[in-house]
Amino acid sequence: MYKVKVYVTLKESVLDPQGTAVKKSLRMMGYDDVNDVRIGKYMELTIGETADQLDAMIEEICSKLLANPVIEDYRYEIEECVPQ
Amino acid sequence: MYKVKVYVTLKESVLDPQGTAVKKSLRMMGYDDVNDVRIGKYMELTIGETADQLDAMIEEICSKLLANPVIEDYRYEIEECVPQ
Repeated sequence: MYKVKVYVTLKESVLDPQGTAVKKSLRMMGYDDVNDVRIGKYMELTIGETADQLDAMIEEICSKLLANPVIEDYRYEIEECVPQ
Repeated sequence: MYKVKVYVTLKESVLDPQGTAVKKSLRMMGYDDVNDVRIGKYMELTIGETADQLDAMIEEICSKLLANPVIEDYRYEIEECVPQ
């Protein structure tokens, strides 16, 4: 069993209206030291037995479904976990 | 300057319909080894000079705005970064 943690973020050059809204809210709440907020996605996949091409498989899943490579970057971490 | 990475995930006991939808799509695409998908949020905050109570401040921001403590868990990492 593997646990894969996928982080999807907007590319640096892409505007992030959701992040801007959160920043504005924080400023209104009095947190004036917050300079920037960027919002992305975090996904945890639990995957069975495919040790061999796991890396290629995750790469494919990310670029085809989880992220939009035109405007988003992604990175992932693979952890082996022992089923209880 | 500090970069704070916030991870917000649904509590284990809370259903995740978005994750279920992604899992179904992956299964339809032929990735039969995917057992489970959970979807959360990932946020990056850039924060100016408040070294002192930074930890308490982030804790407050998370529980008041970024996460819903009733159904979500959150964790965060604080990185000091040198402005260019």
